[in-house]
Amino acid sequence: MTQYDAFLSRTAAAMRESAIRQMGTVLAQATDMISFAPGYPAEDALPWDAFREIAAELLTGADGSVLQYGPTRGYRPLRDAIIGLMRERDVTSPLERVMVTTGSQQGLDLVARVCLDPGDVALMELPSYTGAITAFRNVGASLVGVRQDAGEIDLDDLERTTARLTSEGRRVKFLYLVPNFQNPTGSILSRARRAAVLEWAGRHDLLVIEDDPYRDLYFPDVASDADTRPLAADDADGRVVYLSSFSKTLAPGFRVAWLVAPEPLAARFELAKQAEDLCTGVLDQRVVYESCRRGVLAAQAPRLRAHYQHKRDVMVRALEAAMPGTVGWAMPRGGFFLWARLAPPVDSNALLPHAQTRGVIYVPGRAFFIDGTGSEFMRLSFSSPPPERIEEGVRRLALAVQDAVTSSRTPTACT
Amino acid sequence: MTQYDAFLSRTAAAMRESAIRQMGTVLAQATDMISFAPGYPAEDALPWDAFREIAAELLTGADGSVLQYGPTRGYRPLRDAIIGLMRERDVTSPLERVMVTTGSQQGLDLVARVCLDPGDVALMELPSYTGAITAFRNVGASLVGVRQDAGEIDLDDLERTTARLTSEGRRVKFLYLVPNFQNPTGSILSRARRAAVLEWAGRHDLLVIEDDPYRDLYFPDVASDADTRPLAADDADGRVVYLSSFSKTLAPGFRVAWLVAPEPLAARFELAKQAEDLCTGVLDQRVVYESCRRGVLAAQAPRLRAHYQHKRDVMVRALEAAMPGTVGWAMPRGGFFLWARLAPPVDSNALLPHAQTRGVIYVPGRAFFIDGTGSEFMRLSFSSPPPERIEEGVRRLALAVQDAVTSSRTPTACT
Repeated sequence: MTQYDAFLSRTAAAMRESAIRQMGTVLAQATDMISFAPGYPAEDALPWDAFREIAAELLTGADGSVLQYGPTRGYRPLRDAIIGLMRERDVTSPLERVMVTTGSQQGLDLVARVCLDPGDVALMELPSYTGAITAFRNVGASLVGVRQDAGEIDLDDLERTTARLTSEGRRVKFLYLVPNFQNPTGSILSRARRAAVLEWAGRHDLLVIEDDPYRDLYFPDVASDADTRPLAADDADGRVVYLSSFSKTLAPGFRVAWLVAPEPLAARFELAKQAEDLCTGVLDQRVVYESCRRGVLAAQAPRLRAHYQHKRDVMVRALEAAMPGTVGWAMPRGGFFLWARLAPPVDSNALLPHAQTRGVIYVPGRAFFIDGTGSEFMRLSFSSPPPERIEEGVRRLALAVQDAVTSSRTPTACT
Repeated sequence: MTQYDAFLSRTAAAMRESAIRQMGTVLAQATDMISFAPGYPAEDALPWDAFREIAAELLTGADGSVLQYGPTRGYRPLRDAIIGLMRERDVTSPLERVMVTTGSQQGLDLVARVCLDPGDVALMELPSYTGAITAFRNVGASLVGVRQDAGEIDLDDLERTTARLTSEGRRVKFLYLVPNFQNPTGSILSRARRAAVLEWAGRHDLLVIEDDPYRDLYFPDVASDADTRPLAADDADGRVVYLSSFSKTLAPGFRVAWLVAPEPLAARFELAKQAEDLCTGVLDQRVVYESCRRGVLAAQAPRLRAHYQHKRDVMVRALEAAMPGTVGWAMPRGGFFLWARLAPPVDSNALLPHAQTRGVIYVPGRAFFIDGTGSEFMRLSFSSPPPERIEEGVRRLALAVQDAVTSSRTPTACT
């Protein structure tokens, strides 16, 4: 019998499954399950007709490069289009700083491999996106949490934590942030704190990893384009690695995203990507490029803002109706997520089996906290289900909470 | 001025560009350059009509999952189809051992991350595929070469090297092999040596990484299906990690490949992939699956065998005509490559600038040798250019050799 443990690297031996992907597996196996778990874009809101037309034109065979290997940095016209998108975000991005990635997850993985040695410190908010947590953990980095206050990074805790790590001689590399409609909290970082974070990075000679997949999905009733100005727009020293994606605005199945980084880092990301997958899917890049060029992306953005804002409203009204006093939340100002806090005695870990029994799933808050806290929270994604399923899902969730409360009051038999 | 070196991980600081991708950059910038460098499939041999039809049917919007996130292990029907393809190769592959990867390059990278700690030894043939060299190097592994004799791995050298490393207390993890139509040599491993390698792996309790992208592309005049039987087919102990791809038989632009591994390793590959890119492009997987289901792949294989066998013949005849006595080679029995040995005084590094000036490029042999040798070889890929360009490219190469000989006889001025 071959013993495989001996063949594993230290990091592989420590790898764990992401809680979000676990929920994806639960979902794939269930029938009539309503999912508030993975942050899936709404499939019925995708521009199918445009994609079909573009694919048919690309696949005539007239241009063979559509299905050939492509450059590691990405399809050149798409990189140029990304420069244009970045300009709309007030970020000047020379071509040599722009690279296409296979989803933003690859961008996070490249950051991990290029910037982190085992034991190096990555600072992350409490809570933070699980995909980033996994990527940084997989290279053996030491993740250190920074608290939030009222949904924004706590600058005092950031200073205290940095000072403590420095005094301990730890090697801090960067702070990871999702400033716009954070995954999981849905909150947005104020302009003042963005400036303060940049100032902090300069003072301590550190990088900021700015992950910005939801930027186009602000909700016009409570947020505007101006609120989303990236840290990268004011990055005079070249301390920001900026990641964004077409997954939420066009479609995730293409796996096309991008990063903008200081040139010496971009060159290393390219070398690391070369060994990871040679290049991002070429047909996918071409479809995405044509969607930019023909205005499909520009037309999608306002449609999707209205679509997801409406679904947020449906979820909020359903929660107010079905679970008054049981959960609290801050109104999401964009993105896919409502971050709900459960009132005691129920916590989101204990609630989950009851929710699954009732036919609804979510991601327990603990998945987003690198310090093991967060059990009072759950992430509810309103992006994918249709409105009537959101309402039904919240009703099921309310029943599950009642089940959990009842169950918590039932003493365990001692026989 | 921000100093970026301080932000690099040790492995990132040591990353180097692959020589093949460098040639790709040269190619992209040149006009009228004939490329024998990257192993690009022939674009005019792709089944464009079938792809266009399939894409149009998939992109109606009737099935929203076509552009959604998908499972990390891959689209389930495609994994089932891969089980069928493996059965044709005499390999029994239960579903839990099969995983889709974003190109075989990702498979190699996953092997590197899951199996290799810095300093661990990966055994590789001299010469070996550069993509594997880069992937293993990027995790800080120690690469140790095993000689070939007559284009096949030298079993005595394999034993000697293993014994030496063991006596030195080194941690050897696996041998990496491309048994069918090796990249770069185009050679095929005999059935007897395949059995001997498996026996060696069992005796030393080691893994074999079997990279098999060219298996379907044997040349019927000198090889048959039976010659290509994978080591995995006779792997009773579960020591083989098998990699293969749709890049050479359908199209590389889809970035769809697969691996079959012992279940405990497959589970780790899945975790590592989850953090790398969440999933492989979903539309790409669906197009590839439909190509399997509708018989497009089955129809392609014999067409491509004839296509590439013909191009091999064109290149061989051109070399015989234009470069008699200047280069030697073993007849490729499948795949994309002719491995040419230059007669002194010219070597493939010195020749390259002359070749570029004459309008032809190739990959210098040194790129495939982890010990820095191999300058007498060059890899000539006959897969992509049309026949008349192959002939013209060889004529240019012959002129470049004359230029290089002349130049080597011209004494350097000493002023």
